[in-house]
Amino acid sequence: MAKTIAEKIFSEKSGQDAYAGDIVIAKIDQIALQDGTAPLAIRQVKALGLEKDRIRGAKITHFFVDHAAPSPRKELSNDQKFIREFALEVGADFNKPGEGIIHQIMVERYVNPGDLVVGADSHTCTYGALGAFSTGMGSTDVAIAIALGKNWFRVPETFRIEVNGKLPRGVYAKDLMLTIIGELGVDGATYKALEFHGDTIDSMEMDGRLTMANMAIECGAKAGLFKSDEVTRRFLAERGREERFREIKPDDGAEYERELHFDAGDLEPVVAKPHNVDNVAPVSEVEGTPVDQVFVGTCTNGRLSDIEIVARILKGRRVAENVRLIVGPASREVYLKADELGYLKTIVEAGGLIIPPGCGPCVGIHMGILADGEVCISTQNRNFKGRMGNPEAEIYLSSPATAAASAIEGRISDPRKYL
Amino acid sequence: MAKTIAEKIFSEKSGQDAYAGDIVIAKIDQIALQDGTAPLAIRQVKALGLEKDRIRGAKITHFFVDHAAPSPRKELSNDQKFIREFALEVGADFNKPGEGIIHQIMVERYVNPGDLVVGADSHTCTYGALGAFSTGMGSTDVAIAIALGKNWFRVPETFRIEVNGKLPRGVYAKDLMLTIIGELGVDGATYKALEFHGDTIDSMEMDGRLTMANMAIECGAKAGLFKSDEVTRRFLAERGREERFREIKPDDGAEYERELHFDAGDLEPVVAKPHNVDNVAPVSEVEGTPVDQVFVGTCTNGRLSDIEIVARILKGRRVAENVRLIVGPASREVYLKADELGYLKTIVEAGGLIIPPGCGPCVGIHMGILADGEVCISTQNRNFKGRMGNPEAEIYLSSPATAAASAIEGRISDPRKYL
Repeated sequence: MAKTIAEKIFSEKSGQDAYAGDIVIAKIDQIALQDGTAPLAIRQVKALGLEKDRIRGAKITHFFVDHAAPSPRKELSNDQKFIREFALEVGADFNKPGEGIIHQIMVERYVNPGDLVVGADSHTCTYGALGAFSTGMGSTDVAIAIALGKNWFRVPETFRIEVNGKLPRGVYAKDLMLTIIGELGVDGATYKALEFHGDTIDSMEMDGRLTMANMAIECGAKAGLFKSDEVTRRFLAERGREERFREIKPDDGAEYERELHFDAGDLEPVVAKPHNVDNVAPVSEVEGTPVDQVFVGTCTNGRLSDIEIVARILKGRRVAENVRLIVGPASREVYLKADELGYLKTIVEAGGLIIPPGCGPCVGIHMGILADGEVCISTQNRNFKGRMGNPEAEIYLSSPATAAASAIEGRISDPRKYL
Repeated sequence: MAKTIAEKIFSEKSGQDAYAGDIVIAKIDQIALQDGTAPLAIRQVKALGLEKDRIRGAKITHFFVDHAAPSPRKELSNDQKFIREFALEVGADFNKPGEGIIHQIMVERYVNPGDLVVGADSHTCTYGALGAFSTGMGSTDVAIAIALGKNWFRVPETFRIEVNGKLPRGVYAKDLMLTIIGELGVDGATYKALEFHGDTIDSMEMDGRLTMANMAIECGAKAGLFKSDEVTRRFLAERGREERFREIKPDDGAEYERELHFDAGDLEPVVAKPHNVDNVAPVSEVEGTPVDQVFVGTCTNGRLSDIEIVARILKGRRVAENVRLIVGPASREVYLKADELGYLKTIVEAGGLIIPPGCGPCVGIHMGILADGEVCISTQNRNFKGRMGNPEAEIYLSSPATAAASAIEGRISDPRKYL
């Protein structure tokens, strides 16, 4: 029987024909944890009392320090030391502060099409952009994956999302995904897989696909999946992994629970207004809203093309006097390329500041906590009350272009006038 | 009667012949405050209940956000908002996060030879490098300066410190100043002015003088003073202020409470061991001590020549796997120059990370708090227990060269082998 991408990957990893609704035990290819959740998972692994060499997933486990990097509190510093020591003890991979965000490094270095990946972070779904089935799990479930190298899954039903047409000037993958989430609602695809198709998707570069897959969880989805294609092959080839390319696509006639269609040509720049990701409106509706802080970065929009568009808009212009512009490259690789191309210089000359590769202020732990009553426009994926560390503040979500335009004007602005 | 530099500046600013021990009311040229202390000073100014246009020092007051920039806690974010609103209200200068460290920006943009400057930060003494008398005061005293544009001072006695000879390879202004403080002790010059003379000082570039003046407070001194000369003139000229140059020097026959002599040729690279700045030892004594974190930056050693030496040592080498190397340019100007010259790229390629211009982890608020039992070697000016946010950690102070060598080896190392 014809299969969706999710069904194909779970069939391969479980060694049985697996369809939506089935419960399977599947072999896991990679495991990712960050400093916020890793300590909980490590304690669960330790509680199992296994001999060091019986921890079967140790060699496919990657630890990252990105949520609080460098650490803003000694309690977190102690957590990070605990992670480093465990990684060393069991022979797992450890990435120190400054390497970058878990999800960016996982796709740059480790994840390949067809992989099954779990992570102790909700945005683990990002790797679907490469045609991998990846999903976030609780720390206890990830601990089981570390211990056994496998875990159980319920194979999800799939929503097929078809996008055709050319994205208009000033409209990006972020606007498209916010529009889709606005349509589905924050719980509109709970435990479903999303599969993205159509000529808009086919012609989209990897950075845009990563942005979209990253936000699949924002409508509740278990994964956000893309076919692998020449874009995928090039992404792998540029990182010395071309031989890991394989074609991933659904079978003709696969069954979808729901199909949605979007016409890219109809789209415009949008924002998600406070305090929900599905509270989506055209930029024009909120244009002029004063902002105190602008943040460009995160696992959603901290990649090279994101920083490029910000630099392009800021070139020869100034960030508004009353605005803090914070830009965070998603990884060391992104930082070095953005530096080499002069983007970081342009941003700093315009009045912005560059934080080290990591999650920055997105999670509300440090590096740009908002004051009471302040407003931030950010390229991140969540704007829940208190997300950036202060429930008395407001967060708008947007594309990097809209964020950059807003930084110049000190108010939410339409990016099209700067393009 | 012949006067020291301090006596000459206080005579001019008070309009009377002022000598050590005199109490004078003196006109202040510039006032500097940072985000940690400014809220206290502002509340004191407000408590005076003056009309806005009767705040006489408002136009010479500069506010900086550097200690917690960008902010790691909402309480601090609210403080920063409070500062920004006050600055706007009274017409004072406000520098947002990312501009850099108070003391670096003050010398880059505002302080001139012969000025009298007060600041609500103990390292305000930094500006003595330009031949200004500058000193840190409590927030209440600075509030009075803001309100009146003047304050009272007891004219300090002066220690004359004579340094002659050529600094050996691998020995820098930081090593010299740590050696001097080791000799004087942390309270060896309490409320004295230090005056630096000799051919070592005459041939020292401005960055080195700033490092030395910055640390005058570490032996208790009220100020650390240098003559103004061609080095000073060039520093001002490069920043469009050549017309503000004037010659500042002591009179022949001025009276010094004490004279100390150092032979630069006898010096070697040193560190201050935990937990006191005067606990100074040759690097050789502690060589091999494992380090977890290396920090290069701060108002002491976050300038272009500091970052240059780090980049030079790291070029083509790797930071040890177990070490976090954090580098913080002292200002936007330093950041942009270091970026243009490729230093930041070299440091990031080697495995380090660059934080935005600001105080970084020095003050223990964020951006690199140490875990229990961790060891840091840092170019900052203080290593008291808990200084970097954890009293269970240990801090060694050194030059940027020694810090860079230690980052490569993962242990405290002599920089001379890398030069």
